[in-house]
Amino acid sequence: MNTTPLAEPVSTAPRKIILDCDPGHDDAVAMLLAHGSPMIELLAVTTVVGNHTLEKVTRNALAVGTIAGITGVPFAAGCDRPLVRNIETAAEVHGESGMDGPVLPTSRITLDPRHAVDLIIETIMAHEPGTVTLVPTAGLTNIAMAARKEPRIVERVKEVVLMGGGYHVGNWSPVAEFNIKIDPEAAHIVFNAGWEVVMVGLDLTHQALATPDVVSAIEAIGTKPAKFVMELMEFFTKTYKDTQGFDYPPVHDPCAVAYVIDPTVMTTLRVPVDIELTGTLTLGMTVADFRSPAPAECRTSVAVTLDHGKFWGLVTDALVRIGEGGGQV
Amino acid sequence: MNTTPLAEPVSTAPRKIILDCDPGHDDAVAMLLAHGSPMIELLAVTTVVGNHTLEKVTRNALAVGTIAGITGVPFAAGCDRPLVRNIETAAEVHGESGMDGPVLPTSRITLDPRHAVDLIIETIMAHEPGTVTLVPTAGLTNIAMAARKEPRIVERVKEVVLMGGGYHVGNWSPVAEFNIKIDPEAAHIVFNAGWEVVMVGLDLTHQALATPDVVSAIEAIGTKPAKFVMELMEFFTKTYKDTQGFDYPPVHDPCAVAYVIDPTVMTTLRVPVDIELTGTLTLGMTVADFRSPAPAECRTSVAVTLDHGKFWGLVTDALVRIGEGGGQV
Amino acid sequence: MNTTPLAEPVSTAPRKIILDCDPGHDDAVAMLLAHGSPMIELLAVTTVVGNHTLEKVTRNALAVGTIAGITGVPFAAGCDRPLVRNIETAAEVHGESGMDGPVLPTSRITLDPRHAVDLIIETIMAHEPGTVTLVPTAGLTNIAMAARKEPRIVERVKEVVLMGGGYHVGNWSPVAEFNIKIDPEAAHIVFNAGWEVVMVGLDLTHQALATPDVVSAIEAIGTKPAKFVMELMEFFTKTYKDTQGFDYPPVHDPCAVAYVIDPTVMTTLRVPVDIELTGTLTLGMTVADFRSPAPAECRTSVAVTLDHGKFWGLVTDALVRIGEGGGQV
Amino acid sequence: MNTTPLAEPVSTAPRKIILDCDPGHDDAVAMLLAHGSPMIELLAVTTVVGNHTLEKVTRNALAVGTIAGITGVPFAAGCDRPLVRNIETAAEVHGESGMDGPVLPTSRITLDPRHAVDLIIETIMAHEPGTVTLVPTAGLTNIAMAARKEPRIVERVKEVVLMGGGYHVGNWSPVAEFNIKIDPEAAHIVFNAGWEVVMVGLDLTHQALATPDVVSAIEAIGTKPAKFVMELMEFFTKTYKDTQGFDYPPVHDPCAVAYVIDPTVMTTLRVPVDIELTGTLTLGMTVADFRSPAPAECRTSVAVTLDHGKFWGLVTDALVRIGEGGGQV
Repeated sequence: MNTTPLAEPVSTAPRKIILDCDPGHDDAVAMLLAHGSPMIELLAVTTVVGNHTLEKVTRNALAVGTIAGITGVPFAAGCDRPLVRNIETAAEVHGESGMDGPVLPTSRITLDPRHAVDLIIETIMAHEPGTVTLVPTAGLTNIAMAARKEPRIVERVKEVVLMGGGYHVGNWSPVAEFNIKIDPEAAHIVFNAGWEVVMVGLDLTHQALATPDVVSAIEAIGTKPAKFVMELMEFFTKTYKDTQGFDYPPVHDPCAVAYVIDPTVMTTLRVPVDIELTGTLTLGMTVADFRSPAPAECRTSVAVTLDHGKFWGLVTDALVRIGEGGGQV
Repeated sequence: MNTTPLAEPVSTAPRKIILDCDPGHDDAVAMLLAHGSPMIELLAVTTVVGNHTLEKVTRNALAVGTIAGITGVPFAAGCDRPLVRNIETAAEVHGESGMDGPVLPTSRITLDPRHAVDLIIETIMAHEPGTVTLVPTAGLTNIAMAARKEPRIVERVKEVVLMGGGYHVGNWSPVAEFNIKIDPEAAHIVFNAGWEVVMVGLDLTHQALATPDVVSAIEAIGTKPAKFVMELMEFFTKTYKDTQGFDYPPVHDPCAVAYVIDPTVMTTLRVPVDIELTGTLTLGMTVADFRSPAPAECRTSVAVTLDHGKFWGLVTDALVRIGEGGGQV
Repeated sequence: MNTTPLAEPVSTAPRKIILDCDPGHDDAVAMLLAHGSPMIELLAVTTVVGNHTLEKVTRNALAVGTIAGITGVPFAAGCDRPLVRNIETAAEVHGESGMDGPVLPTSRITLDPRHAVDLIIETIMAHEPGTVTLVPTAGLTNIAMAARKEPRIVERVKEVVLMGGGYHVGNWSPVAEFNIKIDPEAAHIVFNAGWEVVMVGLDLTHQALATPDVVSAIEAIGTKPAKFVMELMEFFTKTYKDTQGFDYPPVHDPCAVAYVIDPTVMTTLRVPVDIELTGTLTLGMTVADFRSPAPAECRTSVAVTLDHGKFWGLVTDALVRIGEGGGQV
Repeated sequence: MNTTPLAEPVSTAPRKIILDCDPGHDDAVAMLLAHGSPMIELLAVTTVVGNHTLEKVTRNALAVGTIAGITGVPFAAGCDRPLVRNIETAAEVHGESGMDGPVLPTSRITLDPRHAVDLIIETIMAHEPGTVTLVPTAGLTNIAMAARKEPRIVERVKEVVLMGGGYHVGNWSPVAEFNIKIDPEAAHIVFNAGWEVVMVGLDLTHQALATPDVVSAIEAIGTKPAKFVMELMEFFTKTYKDTQGFDYPPVHDPCAVAYVIDPTVMTTLRVPVDIELTGTLTLGMTVADFRSPAPAECRTSVAVTLDHGKFWGLVTDALVRIGEGGGQV
């Protein structure tokens, strides 16, 4: 793979993020990227029902944290079901464990006793205004609950950079994406809260394919975490081929983290986006209005074009920095 | 008024309740009834946006608590807006303060620092299973948030006795009632959570009219809290006449408290009830299915017929017991 | 109020009607009532998919016309499916033929070659304005198509007296009735067209029970058409018992005809009624707004209370007048 | 303009079409293209409410027919309003007359007395199965009514090639196009009827821009009909600039006719398309499912890429063939 050099950071100070996720193969890569990047300060990892049950994705998150060697970062479990809808999981994509493929280590990380919603709120309120970025890579239940429970977080976070939706692409219906469709009411809350939202949707992430050169580059790293990623990709390749006909799997979630590390890894467009809640065919669609220039009060952007080389360069660089991580697997 | 004697309680032990309200004229009467009844142990009073903004209904709740002389009971403020919908208040019914009419005293009660959602959860979890009854008399945002944040409360509460909805009557649309319509998603969560729900809706509360004999009976009590209720009823009478054409105002919220005190104050019917979320004309309708006997798994009931004399007897009895209350107004 | 004496017809001239139906047991009775009443001039009988396929209900209509001895009245078939929705029939209520029970005669009536929609339009346009009443007792597809194809009929008909809907009662969902729910878009067209609509819904027709005394009175007539009605009622009694738990079956459709014969057979209330098209639980509900007096421009009324004796008196009287009818069965 | 030579026709026999339209600037061009192409046999022109009222678009259609010199082709007026929704017109795009710009001649064509719905049905039934193509370039009310009134036309027409919708582009909402959104229920009927539907939507027609070279080529023709088109384009350019920010106006409707003349003028993709009827943000969206190859039973295609030169070549060629047309304007 012809990787580009690491992007020149816009600022030299690392960006503080809370990663809200449902590992999930691509969530695992997102977590490794966040941990390994010198441009990210990981404040907390929170989990929410999504790719699989809360219990399984939480166990997976702790396992990935253990593999990555994450220490000193609180992990907390959040909502075990969507706000209004019944639970839908994506076992056919992520397997029975929610992260099938590699054997998972026993976690060395102890779960924080707080509810994820409270950890999110307390973390944001404990930091200076405008310094914390929320990076949800799952259904938006935790984030919506936090915004409703403590409305002051809305103007206090720097921005919300989320993996979800798609302005022209769906995967859980013709026009809706999984993370949004499993809890459309939560997504409606998040997209309409008033904070800055960068939607890294399927339009973008379907460009983040784990192509053979990517896989080779990761393999070449040779560490246990890299091997772990390899095993994840192997499983992910198979299920994406079987269920959606992809030759190489799109690795969605690290794209959102990559944007925080270096916004130049992708192009974005400012455009009003809202969530469809009553459509029969369109429930959970992220409806973007491209008809005219976004009005001044528009706080939503969508990711458009990925720099594939730069993106995977960030991932491989992070894996290199992590080294053997927690020494697991 | 020819009041009936106080109902023989089904059990001699008082019922523990959390009152979640948005005072509101009828919420105030509900609070007084709960405080004055020997059959009620008031564990907490929580507030939520509804009849007016969270700020105003919280101030009103503290004022009513002060007038009633409530001590040793935590009061906490909750959500300041509905889950998904924009805020709608009922200022044309309750006036600019949310409780126009009487002059309100300075509160002697200090607000609990906890969020209402946490106070509700912690109170339920701190008591024996099956002992705490939730009595929401406002939009169901707090209750829904609590059920989603701590799912274990669902099987731990004894039941939810709520004022809201109407199987054949609407007031905020042809077929929807205010408390449900202002946050239909929250109502959907509460009605589908799996706990026992008794819906004391408009079908019932439109029988709880503050008729002249009721007003005379309250006037005859002669205490400051009774005078406070008189002033509330005076204002309420006028706005219900002006906005909905009622000769005497329906005093909704204490009906739910009265049911907890003595279920024989009304008849109820077990029937499946669900909340309409997508209707153009029917949004927020409490859809009851009377077509056949309720199935065994049905956990919802609706209130049908009120014993008007017994109900107002409970209210006046509570006012008599309260005496001068906090000595305010 | 200057009440008129009971049963004195408003006018001595018979009312001209077009009966649009889907026989159907109760449609058959409606047809017999229309034919046998001296107060009705039957201009046309049209059929539409509903209780069963268009083919079956048309065959049934011709058979009933033959039994009744109807001559000189055009019969035409109309739409074979609802406007937007897929076909739903009520075979569990009306049996495999759509009118199970009696053996049906070979029809002596030849179907008019025109489409029902055209026959309806041409019949209305051929008569003086304000003289023709539409009596739909089925889904409203034909009527809606006619109103859209020839908008001038809307102000030309005297009124539309339809069997369908229910302001507080449903039978095809908790809150929707069969005739409306099978083609809610057509109902929306009809209820919003601007003509006078009298909705004879389940609230009323569930009072039109074929009780034992009714059955005895019909039996006593002793004619072939009366025997035919007996056999219809026998089957209808059984299916209504089995499917909806009724002790005696509600005989819906003749109620609409009875209203045309003599409006004093029931009380009605002027109230705005509209059709819910997007509700998840409430699709096809006839939403009536009872909150305040109907505004001056309101053109919809709902039937409330039936005079059971007077209603069945009209039916038995019609059967007596029909005598042996076409001499069939 | 660098026009390509006239496309080699796939078949040498002209294609029989019924043009159902609401002129409308681009409808006028569609009509001229149909009349001037040797590959089209125009069987009928029918009108329907859309860009403006039925009265105005019908007058415009007759005027265009007069200008073009169309003779021996029946013109009939159809529905004056959508099936369920209230009338919406596009006066801000097409002006007060529905076709502002040129002065319109007095029509020499007499309107056929039949309703458009009947003319459509009778024309289809009078021709051999598989020989008539429907080309709707307006709201689909007439076509839907025809399909419901005479279901046999569905398998008798060759195909429906319609201008409307957009799989990734909207103009009457963020995701819906005017022709579909003004009567979404009619569109639902047409897209689900079972006949072959080719959707020539905004994705395609936004490529059919009347660029300066196109305008020059038309101007160079020098006939009265060409001058008429010039005047139409002048007005259209201005309103599209003002209302939607286009530099050159998209001339939608002739694209559908062009596809019938020569399918190689554009690429199409077979994909399931359905119409959203209940969405709050997405009402009237043509929802296409690109997630996997279209199933065998799929009868819908969408137009993707236009050969701009070939398309405008067809238009200018038609204008050349028309010559001075009816000698009007």
